[in-house]
Amino acid sequence: MSIMNTSSSPPNALAPALTVVAVVESDFTGKFGVPRQPGLSPSARGRVRLCGPYARAEALAGLEGVSHVWLLFWFHQTAGAPWRPTVRPPRLGGNRRLGVFATRSTYRPNPIGLSVVKVESVVTSPWVGLEVSGLDLVHGTPIVDIKPYLPYADALESAVNPWAGEAPVAMTVVFAPAADLALSALGDGVRIRRLLEEILALDPRPAYQRDTGRLYHLEAAGVEVRFRIDEPATIEVCEVIPKP
Amino acid sequence: MSIMNTSSSPPNALAPALTVVAVVESDFTGKFGVPRQPGLSPSARGRVRLCGPYARAEALAGLEGVSHVWLLFWFHQTAGAPWRPTVRPPRLGGNRRLGVFATRSTYRPNPIGLSVVKVESVVTSPWVGLEVSGLDLVHGTPIVDIKPYLPYADALESAVNPWAGEAPVAMTVVFAPAADLALSALGDGVRIRRLLEEILALDPRPAYQRDTGRLYHLEAAGVEVRFRIDEPATIEVCEVIPKP
Repeated sequence: MSIMNTSSSPPNALAPALTVVAVVESDFTGKFGVPRQPGLSPSARGRVRLCGPYARAEALAGLEGVSHVWLLFWFHQTAGAPWRPTVRPPRLGGNRRLGVFATRSTYRPNPIGLSVVKVESVVTSPWVGLEVSGLDLVHGTPIVDIKPYLPYADALESAVNPWAGEAPVAMTVVFAPAADLALSALGDGVRIRRLLEEILALDPRPAYQRDTGRLYHLEAAGVEVRFRIDEPATIEVCEVIPKP
Repeated sequence: MSIMNTSSSPPNALAPALTVVAVVESDFTGKFGVPRQPGLSPSARGRVRLCGPYARAEALAGLEGVSHVWLLFWFHQTAGAPWRPTVRPPRLGGNRRLGVFATRSTYRPNPIGLSVVKVESVVTSPWVGLEVSGLDLVHGTPIVDIKPYLPYADALESAVNPWAGEAPVAMTVVFAPAADLALSALGDGVRIRRLLEEILALDPRPAYQRDTGRLYHLEAAGVEVRFRIDEPATIEVCEVIPKP
């Protein structure tokens, strides 16, 4: 039993500390635009790269035939922030409070996130890890565990959650001619266009900041994207600028 | 970013340490007989009791209508044991090695487990927490997080896992007259009988120790159970002895 209760530790502290077993390499360099749940953006591909003493090919043996894995990750951008007993989930418009344990909010007593991704391939050389898709994690996210998805135990067809019953309603995404032109000049333009369609269709605007006519921007997959919403359910991509 | 790399810490250590937000109260006092995945034993009821500064009713607000939650728990019985790059999952007969990240083994770099349970009720007084069922955790297991199950993101109907494609084949469970008599004398006998049927049907014997004719015993729900397997797929409960 490894529960400590010394005066220098927070109450109920568990030892030892966690270690980082892998790091995420993804299209998302900023928090804005990252899908709020995995699987919503199948074109969001990335890598889960084992690191340090965990970068051993045999630790992945058997994952070749497994379609999905859970990633347990560290909320590194908000870790250290105090937990809050209640939070306002963005999906509920930001004005309804739920208990933190009724949400997937990052402001938790233990800043660990849970995300399921599709395994595209198992890589053992020259690096060790997984190529994945449907990834909703920011580039550089530390991973503390990888677990196989077990359909018979994890896929609950009868599960009900009134706060998150269905995937968000998709916005229509249109590209201005200049944006289309910029994308067609990129080697990876077709995939990036599809990725942008997917992440913009999810409406990445914060719930408290949804003004029509305003220009927004986000960065993903090495491009800066400027977009605006003039009609309620249509996002127009005005500009796509490759980052240097 | 909270990654430390000092000489006194393990490589890749994350700070701060985790805290225990809740503790499990369950029917399972010993490890033997605990279902290897949750949901396989619907009669296995228990409590997830928030503790310390986390025992606040508002932290659960909104879970009343949520059918299932994920429990992230600390493998407290094996924490401190070294991780192993490969393990032999009991379900594969104990003689096939898989990478640790292809299994749900407890011998992981970070000893955190993941288990989904059904929410029976949200309790705010005189204690704060959840009544749950389908629980596969030992009494006293420390919980580090509770997260709502999100059907649209978590329930993957197309997921494939060749190592765990289906729930284990059920054994037939029969009760000797003496065992039936002992159960009928218990106030909670009907539920305990159903619980024993469920956990024994899963064949709790270790894969490397499956001799017919041998007498096994396990403890659950306050009783000691002695059982034997004379035919390959039938478990006979010989005795049920209430624990003092």
